[in-house]
Amino acid sequence: MRTPMACTQTLSNPLPSSPHLLPHKPDSIQLTQEEMKRVAAYRAADMVGSGMVVGLGTGSTAAHFIDRLAELMLNGSLTGIIGIPTSLQTEKHAIKAGIPLSTLDSHPIVDISIDGADEVDPKYNLVKGRGGSLFREKMIEGASRKFVVIVDETKMVGCLGGSGLSVPVEIVPFSWNYTLLKIQKLFENEIGFSARLRVDQDNKPFKTDNENYIIEMFFEKGVSGDLNEVSDKLLRLTGVIEHGMFLNMATNVVMAKKDGSLVILNK
Amino acid sequence: MRTPMACTQTLSNPLPSSPHLLPHKPDSIQLTQEEMKRVAAYRAADMVGSGMVVGLGTGSTAAHFIDRLAELMLNGSLTGIIGIPTSLQTEKHAIKAGIPLSTLDSHPIVDISIDGADEVDPKYNLVKGRGGSLFREKMIEGASRKFVVIVDETKMVGCLGGSGLSVPVEIVPFSWNYTLLKIQKLFENEIGFSARLRVDQDNKPFKTDNENYIIEMFFEKGVSGDLNEVSDKLLRLTGVIEHGMFLNMATNVVMAKKDGSLVILNK
Repeated sequence: MRTPMACTQTLSNPLPSSPHLLPHKPDSIQLTQEEMKRVAAYRAADMVGSGMVVGLGTGSTAAHFIDRLAELMLNGSLTGIIGIPTSLQTEKHAIKAGIPLSTLDSHPIVDISIDGADEVDPKYNLVKGRGGSLFREKMIEGASRKFVVIVDETKMVGCLGGSGLSVPVEIVPFSWNYTLLKIQKLFENEIGFSARLRVDQDNKPFKTDNENYIIEMFFEKGVSGDLNEVSDKLLRLTGVIEHGMFLNMATNVVMAKKDGSLVILNK
Repeated sequence: MRTPMACTQTLSNPLPSSPHLLPHKPDSIQLTQEEMKRVAAYRAADMVGSGMVVGLGTGSTAAHFIDRLAELMLNGSLTGIIGIPTSLQTEKHAIKAGIPLSTLDSHPIVDISIDGADEVDPKYNLVKGRGGSLFREKMIEGASRKFVVIVDETKMVGCLGGSGLSVPVEIVPFSWNYTLLKIQKLFENEIGFSARLRVDQDNKPFKTDNENYIIEMFFEKGVSGDLNEVSDKLLRLTGVIEHGMFLNMATNVVMAKKDGSLVILNK
Protein backbone atom coordinates (compact mmCIF):
# COMPACT_ATOMS: atom_id res chain seq x y z
CA MET A 1 0.00 0.00 0.00
CA ARG A 2 0.95 3.60 -0.59
CA THR A 3 2.48 5.38 2.34
CA PRO A 4 0.75 8.76 2.67
CA MET A 5 2.89 11.81 1.95
CA ALA A 6 4.01 13.25 5.27
CA CYS A 7 2.90 16.71 6.23
CA THR A 8 5.88 18.97 5.67
CA GLN A 9 4.53 22.36 6.62
CA THR A 10 6.49 23.96 9.40
CA LEU A 11 5.89 26.81 11.72
CA SER A 12 9.32 28.38 11.14
CA ASN A 13 7.55 31.37 9.60
CA PRO A 14 3.83 30.97 10.07
CA LEU A 15 3.07 34.63 9.50
CA PRO A 16 2.73 36.41 6.17
CA SER A 17 5.47 38.87 5.29
CA SER A 18 3.65 41.95 6.49
CA PRO A 19 1.22 41.04 9.20
CA HIS A 20 -0.72 43.78 10.88
CA LEU A 21 1.19 44.21 14.14
CA LEU A 22 -0.40 46.47 16.69
CA PRO A 23 2.00 49.34 17.47
CA HIS A 24 2.04 49.08 21.25
CA LYS A 25 4.30 46.22 22.22
CA PRO A 26 5.62 46.66 25.75
CA ASP A 27 8.77 44.65 26.37
CA SER A 28 8.10 43.50 29.88
CA ILE A 29 4.59 42.03 29.53
CA GLN A 30 4.10 38.26 29.69
CA LEU A 31 0.42 37.41 29.24
CA THR A 32 -1.14 34.25 30.60
CA GLN A 33 -3.01 32.06 28.11
CA GLU A 34 -6.32 33.34 29.47
CA GLU A 35 -5.20 36.93 29.00
CA MET A 36 -4.09 36.20 25.43
CA LYS A 37 -7.51 34.72 24.68
CA ARG A 38 -9.22 37.82 26.02
CA VAL A 39 -6.96 40.19 24.09
CA ALA A 40 -7.76 38.38 20.82
CA ALA A 41 -11.47 38.20 21.59
CA TYR A 42 -11.71 41.90 22.40
CA ARG A 43 -9.91 42.87 19.21
CA ALA A 44 -12.25 40.70 17.14
CA ALA A 45 -15.29 42.36 18.72
CA ASP A 46 -14.16 45.60 17.03
CA MET A 47 -14.88 43.92 13.68
CA VAL A 48 -18.60 43.67 14.47
CA GLY A 49 -20.81 46.49 13.22
CA SER A 50 -24.29 47.58 14.26
CA GLY A 51 -27.14 45.65 12.64
CA MET A 52 -25.04 42.55 11.97
CA VAL A 53 -26.09 38.92 12.27
CA VAL A 54 -23.24 37.39 14.31
CA GLY A 55 -22.28 33.73 14.66
CA LEU A 56 -21.33 33.17 18.29
CA GLY A 57 -18.58 30.58 18.79
CA THR A 58 -18.21 28.02 21.54
CA GLY A 59 -15.41 27.54 24.07
CA SER A 60 -13.31 29.59 26.44
CA THR A 61 -11.98 32.11 23.88
CA ALA A 62 -15.38 32.64 22.27
CA ALA A 63 -16.84 33.19 25.75
CA HIS A 64 -14.63 36.28 26.15
CA PHE A 65 -15.94 37.55 22.80
CA ILE A 66 -19.56 37.07 23.87
CA ASP A 67 -18.91 39.02 27.08
CA ARG A 68 -17.28 41.83 25.13
CA LEU A 69 -20.08 41.90 22.54
CA ALA A 70 -22.67 42.19 25.31
CA GLU A 71 -20.63 45.01 26.87
CA LEU A 72 -20.51 46.95 23.57
CA MET A 73 -24.26 46.49 23.16
CA LEU A 74 -24.92 47.63 26.71
CA ASN A 75 -22.86 50.82 26.40
CA GLY A 76 -24.58 51.63 23.11
CA SER A 77 -21.56 51.15 20.84
CA LEU A 78 -23.37 48.40 18.96
CA THR A 79 -27.09 48.22 18.16
CA GLY A 80 -29.34 45.85 16.26
CA ILE A 81 -27.14 42.77 16.80
CA ILE A 82 -28.63 39.31 16.31
CA GLY A 83 -26.59 36.38 17.55
CA ILE A 84 -26.65 32.82 16.14
CA PRO A 85 -25.27 30.47 18.81
CA THR A 86 -23.11 27.50 17.77
CA SER A 87 -24.01 25.36 20.80
CA LEU A 88 -26.54 25.01 23.60
CA GLN A 89 -23.80 26.15 26.00
CA THR A 90 -23.25 29.36 24.00
CA GLU A 91 -27.01 29.87 23.72
CA LYS A 92 -27.31 29.88 27.52
CA HIS A 93 -24.34 32.23 27.90
CA ALA A 94 -25.67 34.65 25.27
CA ILE A 95 -29.17 34.72 26.78
CA LYS A 96 -27.64 35.50 30.17
CA ALA A 97 -25.53 38.25 28.59
CA GLY A 98 -28.64 39.77 26.99
CA ILE A 99 -27.83 39.18 23.32
CA PRO A 100 -30.95 38.69 21.12
CA LEU A 101 -30.71 35.31 19.38
CA SER A 102 -32.01 33.71 16.22
CA THR A 103 -31.31 30.63 14.09
CA LEU A 104 -29.74 29.84 10.76
CA ASP A 105 -33.20 28.82 9.51
CA SER A 106 -34.41 32.41 10.04
CA HIS A 107 -31.12 34.05 9.06
CA PRO A 108 -29.44 31.85 6.44
CA ILE A 109 -26.78 34.50 5.77
CA VAL A 110 -24.53 35.40 8.70
CA ASP A 111 -22.50 38.61 8.44
CA ILE A 112 -19.66 37.55 10.69
CA SER A 113 -18.82 34.60 12.92
CA ILE A 114 -16.22 34.79 15.65
CA ASP A 115 -14.89 31.67 17.31
CA GLY A 116 -11.80 30.09 18.80
CA ALA A 117 -9.97 27.10 17.31
CA ASP A 118 -7.94 24.22 18.67
CA GLU A 119 -5.36 24.47 15.90
CA VAL A 120 -4.58 26.87 13.03
CA ASP A 121 -2.21 25.85 10.22
CA PRO A 122 -0.20 28.24 7.98
CA LYS A 123 -3.04 28.26 5.42
CA TYR A 124 -5.61 29.12 8.13
CA ASN A 125 -7.12 25.64 8.03
CA LEU A 126 -8.39 24.79 11.48
CA VAL A 127 -9.07 21.95 13.85
CA LYS A 128 -12.15 22.75 15.88
CA GLY A 129 -14.66 20.93 17.99
CA ARG A 130 -12.70 19.56 20.93
CA GLY A 131 -15.45 21.28 22.90
CA GLY A 132 -17.90 18.93 21.15
CA SER A 133 -19.71 21.51 19.00
CA LEU A 134 -18.06 21.03 15.65
CA PHE A 135 -21.27 20.35 13.73
CA ARG A 136 -23.14 23.53 14.65
CA GLU A 137 -19.96 25.56 14.45
CA LYS A 138 -19.22 24.32 10.95
CA MET A 139 -22.76 24.89 9.79
CA ILE A 140 -23.02 28.46 11.08
CA GLU A 141 -19.46 29.51 10.31
CA GLY A 142 -19.81 28.00 6.84
CA ALA A 143 -22.83 30.25 6.29
CA SER A 144 -20.85 33.37 7.25
CA ARG A 145 -19.55 36.10 4.96
CA LYS A 146 -16.62 36.62 7.33
CA PHE A 147 -15.27 34.04 9.75
CA VAL A 148 -12.81 35.45 12.28
CA VAL A 149 -10.77 32.97 14.29
CA ILE A 150 -9.48 34.16 17.65
CA VAL A 151 -6.55 32.31 19.17
CA ASP A 152 -3.51 32.61 21.34
CA GLU A 153 -0.18 31.80 19.75
CA THR A 154 -0.05 28.30 21.27
CA LYS A 155 -2.72 27.21 18.75
CA MET A 156 -0.56 27.72 15.68
CA VAL A 157 0.63 24.41 14.17
CA GLY A 158 2.60 23.34 11.11
CA CYS A 159 0.07 20.64 10.20
CA LEU A 160 -3.48 19.99 11.39
CA GLY A 161 -3.39 17.36 14.12
CA GLY A 162 0.20 18.43 14.77
CA SER A 163 -0.42 19.42 18.38
CA GLY A 164 -0.89 15.74 19.23
CA LEU A 165 -4.34 16.51 20.58
CA SER A 166 -7.47 15.04 19.02
CA VAL A 167 -9.13 15.76 15.69
CA PRO A 168 -12.82 15.04 16.40
CA VAL A 169 -15.32 13.37 14.07
CA GLU A 170 -19.08 13.48 14.74
CA ILE A 171 -20.75 10.15 13.95
CA VAL A 172 -24.19 8.53 14.09
CA PRO A 173 -24.44 6.43 17.29
CA PHE A 174 -25.86 3.39 15.42
CA SER A 175 -23.04 0.81 15.04
CA TRP A 176 -20.45 3.34 16.21
CA ASN A 177 -17.90 0.61 16.75
CA TYR A 178 -18.10 -0.31 13.08
CA THR A 179 -17.58 3.34 12.10
CA LEU A 180 -14.56 3.48 14.43
CA LEU A 181 -13.12 0.41 12.66
CA LYS A 182 -13.63 2.08 9.27
CA ILE A 183 -11.86 5.24 10.45
CA GLN A 184 -8.94 3.18 11.80
CA LYS A 185 -8.78 1.37 8.46
CA LEU A 186 -8.78 4.68 6.56
CA PHE A 187 -5.64 5.86 8.34
CA GLU A 188 -3.89 2.51 8.77
CA ASN A 189 -0.86 3.77 6.84
CA GLU A 190 -0.42 6.84 9.07
CA ILE A 191 2.38 5.99 11.50
CA GLY A 192 1.21 6.36 15.09
CA PHE A 193 -2.44 7.01 14.20
CA SER A 194 -5.05 6.04 16.77
CA ALA A 195 -8.76 6.69 17.26
CA ARG A 196 -11.23 6.13 20.07
CA LEU A 197 -14.76 6.96 21.14
CA ARG A 198 -14.97 10.09 23.28
CA VAL A 199 -16.45 9.35 26.69
CA ASP A 200 -17.72 11.60 29.47
CA GLN A 201 -16.61 11.55 33.13
CA ASP A 202 -18.85 8.52 33.80
CA ASN A 203 -17.18 6.61 30.96
CA LYS A 204 -20.41 6.82 28.95
CA PRO A 205 -20.27 7.93 25.28
CA PHE A 206 -20.05 11.73 25.13
CA LYS A 207 -23.14 13.09 23.36
CA THR A 208 -23.12 16.16 21.14
CA ASP A 209 -25.91 18.76 21.07
CA ASN A 210 -27.34 16.69 18.19
CA GLU A 211 -27.30 13.50 20.33
CA ASN A 212 -24.50 12.03 18.24
CA TYR A 213 -21.13 10.53 19.25
CA ILE A 214 -17.58 11.76 18.72
CA ILE A 215 -14.57 9.75 17.54
CA GLU A 216 -11.27 11.32 18.59
CA MET A 217 -8.49 10.84 16.04
CA PHE A 218 -4.82 11.27 17.00
CA PHE A 219 -2.09 11.87 14.41
CA GLU A 220 1.45 11.47 15.72
CA LYS A 221 2.84 13.69 12.95
CA GLY A 222 -0.23 15.61 11.85
CA VAL A 223 -2.63 14.84 9.01
CA SER A 224 -0.66 14.03 5.85
CA GLY A 225 -1.62 14.37 2.19
CA ASP A 226 -4.23 16.59 0.58
CA LEU A 227 -6.60 17.73 3.32
CA ASN A 228 -9.59 18.01 0.96
CA GLU A 229 -9.09 14.40 -0.07
CA VAL A 230 -8.83 13.31 3.55
CA SER A 231 -12.05 15.22 4.22
CA ASP A 232 -13.89 13.52 1.33
CA LYS A 233 -12.70 10.07 2.43
CA LEU A 234 -14.03 10.66 5.93
CA LEU A 235 -17.36 12.06 4.70
CA ARG A 236 -17.84 9.05 2.41
CA LEU A 237 -17.93 6.71 5.43
CA THR A 238 -21.62 6.07 6.02
CA GLY A 239 -21.46 6.63 9.80
CA VAL A 240 -19.59 9.94 9.59
CA ILE A 241 -21.64 13.14 9.81
CA GLU A 242 -18.92 15.80 9.96
CA HIS A 243 -15.33 16.24 11.08
CA GLY A 244 -13.40 18.93 12.92
CA MET A 245 -11.12 19.99 10.08
CA PHE A 246 -12.39 23.41 8.93
CA LEU A 247 -10.73 23.77 5.54
CA ASN A 248 -10.60 27.05 3.66
CA MET A 249 -13.25 28.60 5.90
CA ALA A 250 -11.48 31.20 8.07
CA THR A 251 -11.23 34.64 6.45
CA ASN A 252 -9.32 36.28 9.31
CA VAL A 253 -7.18 35.12 12.22
CA VAL A 254 -6.64 37.31 15.27
CA MET A 255 -3.74 35.87 17.24
CA ALA A 256 -2.58 37.15 20.60
CA LYS A 257 1.03 36.60 21.63
CA LYS A 258 2.57 36.23 25.06
CA ASP A 259 4.32 39.60 24.76
CA GLY A 260 0.95 41.32 24.46
CA SER A 261 1.12 41.97 20.74
CA LEU A 262 -1.62 41.03 18.31
CA VAL A 263 -1.20 39.62 14.83
CA ILE A 264 -4.11 40.03 12.45
CA LEU A 265 -4.03 37.79 9.40
CA ASN A 266 -6.41 38.44 6.50
CA LYS A 267 -7.01 36.01 3.70
CA MET B 1 -22.90 28.63 -14.82
CA ARG B 2 -22.31 25.25 -16.38
CA THR B 3 -25.41 23.31 -17.32
CA PRO B 4 -25.02 19.77 -15.98
CA MET B 5 -24.64 17.05 -18.60
CA ALA B 6 -28.00 15.35 -18.99
CA CYS B 7 -28.32 11.71 -18.07
CA THR B 8 -28.34 9.82 -21.36
CA GLN B 9 -28.57 6.24 -20.23
CA THR B 10 -31.61 4.50 -21.61
CA LEU B 11 -33.40 1.32 -20.77
CA SER B 12 -33.54 0.14 -24.40
CA ASN B 13 -31.36 -2.80 -23.41
CA PRO B 14 -30.91 -2.80 -19.67
CA LEU B 15 -29.84 -6.45 -19.51
CA PRO B 16 -26.39 -7.88 -20.19
CA SER B 17 -25.98 -9.95 -23.35
CA SER B 18 -26.40 -13.32 -21.66
CA PRO B 19 -28.51 -12.97 -18.56
CA HIS B 20 -29.34 -16.04 -16.59
CA LEU B 21 -32.92 -16.69 -17.64
CA LEU B 22 -34.80 -19.36 -15.75
CA PRO B 23 -35.93 -22.06 -18.22
CA HIS B 24 -39.58 -22.22 -17.27
CA LYS B 25 -41.35 -19.27 -18.85
CA PRO B 26 -45.03 -20.04 -19.34
CA ASP B 27 -46.63 -17.82 -21.96
CA SER B 28 -49.93 -17.16 -20.27
CA ILE B 29 -48.78 -15.99 -16.79
CA GLN B 30 -49.15 -12.31 -15.84
CA LEU B 31 -47.83 -11.77 -12.32
CA THR B 32 -49.01 -8.94 -10.09
CA GLN B 33 -46.33 -6.66 -8.66
CA GLU B 34 -46.63 -8.39 -5.30
CA GLU B 35 -46.14 -11.78 -6.94
CA MET B 36 -43.08 -10.51 -8.81
CA LYS B 37 -41.59 -9.28 -5.54
CA ARG B 38 -42.16 -12.67 -3.94
CA VAL B 39 -40.66 -14.55 -6.88
CA ALA B 40 -37.49 -12.45 -6.72
CA ALA B 41 -37.28 -12.71 -2.93
CA TYR B 42 -37.64 -16.48 -2.94
CA ARG B 43 -34.97 -16.90 -5.59
CA ALA B 44 -32.55 -14.70 -3.61
CA ALA B 45 -33.12 -16.82 -0.51
CA ASP B 46 -31.49 -19.71 -2.39
CA MET B 47 -28.24 -17.71 -2.35
CA VAL B 48 -28.04 -17.90 1.43
CA GLY B 49 -26.00 -20.75 2.90
CA SER B 50 -25.96 -22.26 6.39
CA GLY B 51 -23.82 -20.41 8.93
CA MET B 52 -24.04 -17.09 7.12
CA VAL B 53 -24.36 -13.63 8.63
CA VAL B 54 -27.22 -12.10 6.60
CA GLY B 55 -28.15 -8.43 6.21
CA LEU B 56 -31.94 -8.23 6.28
CA GLY B 57 -33.38 -5.49 4.09
CA THR B 58 -36.36 -3.24 4.73
CA GLY B 59 -39.57 -2.81 2.75
CA SER B 60 -42.23 -4.93 1.08
CA THR B 61 -39.89 -7.00 -1.15
CA ALA B 62 -37.40 -7.64 1.65
CA ALA B 63 -40.29 -8.74 3.87
CA HIS B 64 -40.98 -11.63 1.47
CA PHE B 65 -37.30 -12.60 1.74
CA ILE B 66 -37.41 -12.59 5.55
CA ASP B 67 -40.49 -14.84 5.50
CA ARG B 68 -38.78 -17.24 3.11
CA LEU B 69 -35.55 -17.24 5.13
CA ALA B 70 -37.50 -18.12 8.28
CA GLU B 71 -39.28 -20.89 6.38
CA LEU B 72 -35.98 -22.40 5.20
CA MET B 73 -34.62 -22.25 8.75
CA LEU B 74 -37.74 -23.84 10.15
CA ASN B 75 -37.70 -26.76 7.71
CA GLY B 76 -34.02 -27.34 8.45
CA SER B 77 -32.69 -26.34 5.01
CA LEU B 78 -30.64 -23.55 6.61
CA THR B 79 -28.91 -23.63 9.99
CA GLY B 80 -26.69 -21.25 11.95
CA ILE B 81 -28.08 -18.09 10.35
CA ILE B 82 -27.53 -14.74 12.05
CA GLY B 83 -29.53 -11.78 10.78
CA ILE B 84 -28.49 -8.11 10.88
CA PRO B 85 -31.65 -5.99 10.52
CA THR B 86 -31.48 -2.73 8.54
CA SER B 87 -34.34 -1.05 10.43
CA LEU B 88 -36.39 -1.28 13.60
CA GLN B 89 -39.31 -2.43 11.45
CA THR B 90 -37.26 -5.32 10.04
CA GLU B 91 -35.92 -6.13 13.51
CA LYS B 92 -39.50 -6.63 14.76
CA HIS B 93 -40.42 -8.71 11.73
CA ALA B 94 -37.34 -10.94 12.05
CA ILE B 95 -37.84 -11.49 15.78
CA LYS B 96 -41.44 -12.54 15.10
CA ALA B 97 -40.23 -14.85 12.33
CA GLY B 98 -37.73 -16.47 14.73
CA ILE B 99 -34.48 -15.35 13.08
CA PRO B 100 -31.58 -14.89 15.58
CA LEU B 101 -30.28 -11.34 15.31
CA SER B 102 -27.05 -9.49 15.95
CA THR B 103 -25.48 -6.12 15.08
CA LEU B 104 -22.77 -4.80 12.82
CA ASP B 105 -20.74 -3.97 15.93
CA SER B 106 -20.60 -7.68 16.82
CA HIS B 107 -20.37 -8.90 13.21
CA PRO B 108 -18.52 -6.24 11.19
CA ILE B 109 -18.35 -8.53 8.16
CA VAL B 110 -21.68 -9.56 6.64
CA ASP B 111 -21.67 -12.54 4.25
CA ILE B 112 -24.68 -11.50 2.22
CA SER B 113 -27.33 -8.78 2.34
CA ILE B 114 -30.62 -9.05 0.51
CA ASP B 115 -32.85 -6.04 0.03
CA GLY B 116 -35.24 -4.37 -2.37
CA ALA B 117 -34.58 -1.08 -4.16
CA ASP B 118 -36.68 1.80 -5.41
CA GLU B 119 -34.70 2.11 -8.63
CA VAL B 120 -31.92 0.15 -10.38
CA ASP B 121 -29.95 1.73 -13.25
CA PRO B 122 -28.11 -0.17 -16.04
CA LYS B 123 -24.89 -0.14 -13.96
CA TYR B 124 -26.73 -1.56 -10.92
CA ASN B 125 -26.56 1.74 -9.09
CA LEU B 126 -29.61 2.06 -6.87
CA VAL B 127 -31.97 4.52 -5.28
CA LYS B 128 -33.02 3.23 -1.91
CA GLY B 129 -34.55 4.53 1.24
CA ARG B 130 -38.00 5.70 0.26
CA GLY B 131 -39.01 3.50 3.20
CA GLY B 132 -36.92 5.84 5.38
CA SER B 133 -34.13 3.38 6.29
CA LEU B 134 -31.38 4.40 3.91
CA PHE B 135 -28.76 5.00 6.58
CA ARG B 136 -28.84 1.58 8.24
CA GLU B 137 -29.31 -0.12 4.88
CA LYS B 138 -26.26 1.60 3.43
CA MET B 139 -24.14 0.84 6.47
CA ILE B 140 -25.00 -2.86 6.61
CA GLU B 141 -25.11 -3.48 2.87
CA GLY B 142 -21.83 -1.60 2.50
CA ALA B 143 -20.28 -4.04 5.01
CA SER B 144 -21.46 -7.06 2.98
CA ARG B 145 -19.35 -9.35 0.81
CA LYS B 146 -22.35 -9.89 -1.44
CA PHE B 147 -25.30 -7.51 -1.82
CA VAL B 148 -28.23 -8.97 -3.70
CA VAL B 149 -30.93 -6.58 -4.85
CA ILE B 150 -34.40 -8.05 -5.38
CA VAL B 151 -36.80 -6.14 -7.57
CA ASP B 152 -39.65 -6.43 -9.99
CA GLU B 153 -39.08 -5.13 -13.49
CA THR B 154 -40.90 -1.84 -12.81
CA LYS B 155 -37.88 -0.70 -10.75
CA MET B 156 -35.44 -0.64 -13.68
CA VAL B 157 -34.62 2.93 -14.80
CA GLY B 158 -32.30 4.53 -17.34
CA CYS B 159 -31.02 7.08 -14.82
CA LEU B 160 -31.29 7.27 -11.04
CA GLY B 161 -34.17 9.53 -10.13
CA GLY B 162 -35.64 8.72 -13.54
CA SER B 163 -38.84 7.26 -12.15
CA GLY B 164 -39.86 10.75 -11.03
CA LEU B 165 -40.17 9.51 -7.46
CA SER B 166 -37.98 10.88 -4.69
CA VAL B 167 -34.27 10.40 -4.03
CA PRO B 168 -34.03 10.70 -0.23
CA VAL B 169 -31.27 12.41 1.79
CA GLU B 170 -30.92 11.88 5.55
CA ILE B 171 -30.01 15.11 7.34
CA VAL B 172 -29.37 16.38 10.86
CA PRO B 173 -32.58 18.06 12.17
CA PHE B 174 -30.66 21.15 13.41
CA SER B 175 -31.28 24.02 10.93
CA TRP B 176 -32.88 21.61 8.44
CA ASN B 177 -34.32 24.47 6.46
CA TYR B 178 -30.83 25.80 5.82
CA THR B 179 -29.71 22.36 4.63
CA LEU B 180 -32.73 22.20 2.32
CA LEU B 181 -31.70 25.59 0.85
CA LYS B 182 -28.16 24.30 0.27
CA ILE B 183 -29.47 21.19 -1.51
CA GLN B 184 -31.73 23.33 -3.70
CA LYS B 185 -28.73 25.54 -4.51
CA LEU B 186 -26.61 22.49 -5.38
CA PHE B 187 -29.05 21.40 -8.07
CA GLU B 188 -30.24 24.82 -9.25
CA ASN B 189 -29.07 24.07 -12.79
CA GLU B 190 -31.06 20.83 -13.04
CA ILE B 191 -34.22 21.61 -14.97
CA GLY B 192 -37.33 20.69 -12.99
CA PHE B 193 -35.43 19.84 -9.79
CA SER B 194 -37.29 20.24 -6.52
CA ALA B 195 -36.70 19.23 -2.91
CA ARG B 196 -38.79 19.21 0.24
CA LEU B 197 -38.81 17.94 3.79
CA ARG B 198 -40.49 14.58 4.17
CA VAL B 199 -43.45 14.77 6.57
CA ASP B 200 -45.58 12.10 8.21
CA GLN B 201 -49.38 11.82 8.08
CA ASP B 202 -49.71 14.52 10.76
CA ASN B 203 -47.61 16.90 8.67
CA LYS B 204 -44.77 16.66 11.23
CA PRO B 205 -41.21 16.01 10.03
CA PHE B 206 -40.78 12.29 9.32
CA LYS B 207 -38.14 10.86 11.69
CA THR B 208 -35.74 8.09 10.74
CA ASP B 209 -34.69 5.28 13.09
CA ASN B 210 -31.74 7.55 13.96
CA GLU B 211 -34.09 10.45 14.85
CA ASN B 212 -32.97 12.40 11.81
CA TYR B 213 -34.97 14.06 9.02
CA ILE B 214 -35.29 13.23 5.33
CA ILE B 215 -35.15 15.64 2.37
CA GLU B 216 -36.88 14.25 -0.72
CA MET B 217 -35.23 15.29 -3.99
CA PHE B 218 -37.09 15.08 -7.30
CA PHE B 219 -35.27 15.05 -10.64
CA GLU B 220 -37.50 15.61 -13.65
CA LYS B 221 -35.04 13.88 -15.97
CA GLY B 222 -32.99 11.83 -13.53
CA VAL B 223 -29.68 12.72 -11.86
CA SER B 224 -27.24 14.08 -14.45
CA GLY B 225 -23.46 14.09 -14.49
CA ASP B 226 -21.00 11.84 -12.68
CA LEU B 227 -22.90 10.18 -9.83
CA ASN B 228 -19.82 9.89 -7.62
CA GLU B 229 -19.27 13.64 -7.94
CA VAL B 230 -22.93 14.30 -7.13
CA SER B 231 -22.53 12.06 -4.09
CA ASP B 232 -19.43 13.91 -2.86
CA LYS B 233 -21.11 17.29 -3.31
CA LEU B 234 -24.06 16.18 -1.20
CA LEU B 235 -21.88 14.64 1.50
CA ARG B 236 -19.82 17.85 1.74
CA LEU B 237 -22.90 19.78 2.87
CA THR B 238 -22.56 20.00 6.64
CA GLY B 239 -26.17 19.01 7.38
CA VAL B 240 -26.16 15.94 5.13
CA ILE B 241 -25.54 12.57 6.78
CA GLU B 242 -26.17 10.18 3.89
CA HIS B 243 -28.17 9.92 0.68
CA GLY B 244 -30.20 7.22 -1.01
CA MET B 245 -27.97 6.71 -4.06
CA PHE B 246 -26.22 3.37 -3.53
CA LEU B 247 -23.37 3.57 -6.02
CA ASN B 248 -21.30 0.57 -7.02
CA MET B 249 -22.61 -1.48 -4.10
CA ALA B 250 -24.93 -4.15 -5.55
CA THR B 251 -23.13 -7.34 -6.60
CA ASN B 252 -26.24 -9.13 -7.92
CA VAL B 253 -29.69 -8.14 -9.08
CA VAL B 254 -32.56 -10.63 -9.08
CA MET B 255 -35.35 -9.16 -11.19
CA ALA B 256 -38.77 -10.73 -11.61
CA LYS B 257 -40.76 -9.99 -14.76
CA LYS B 258 -44.51 -9.88 -15.30
CA ASP B 259 -44.37 -13.00 -17.47
CA GLY B 260 -43.04 -15.00 -14.53
CA SER B 261 -39.44 -15.18 -15.73
CA LEU B 262 -36.49 -14.20 -13.57
CA VAL B 263 -33.38 -12.35 -14.71
CA ILE B 264 -30.30 -12.73 -12.55
CA LEU B 265 -27.58 -10.14 -13.15
CA ASN B 266 -24.11 -10.67 -11.67
CA LYS B 267 -21.49 -7.99 -11.53
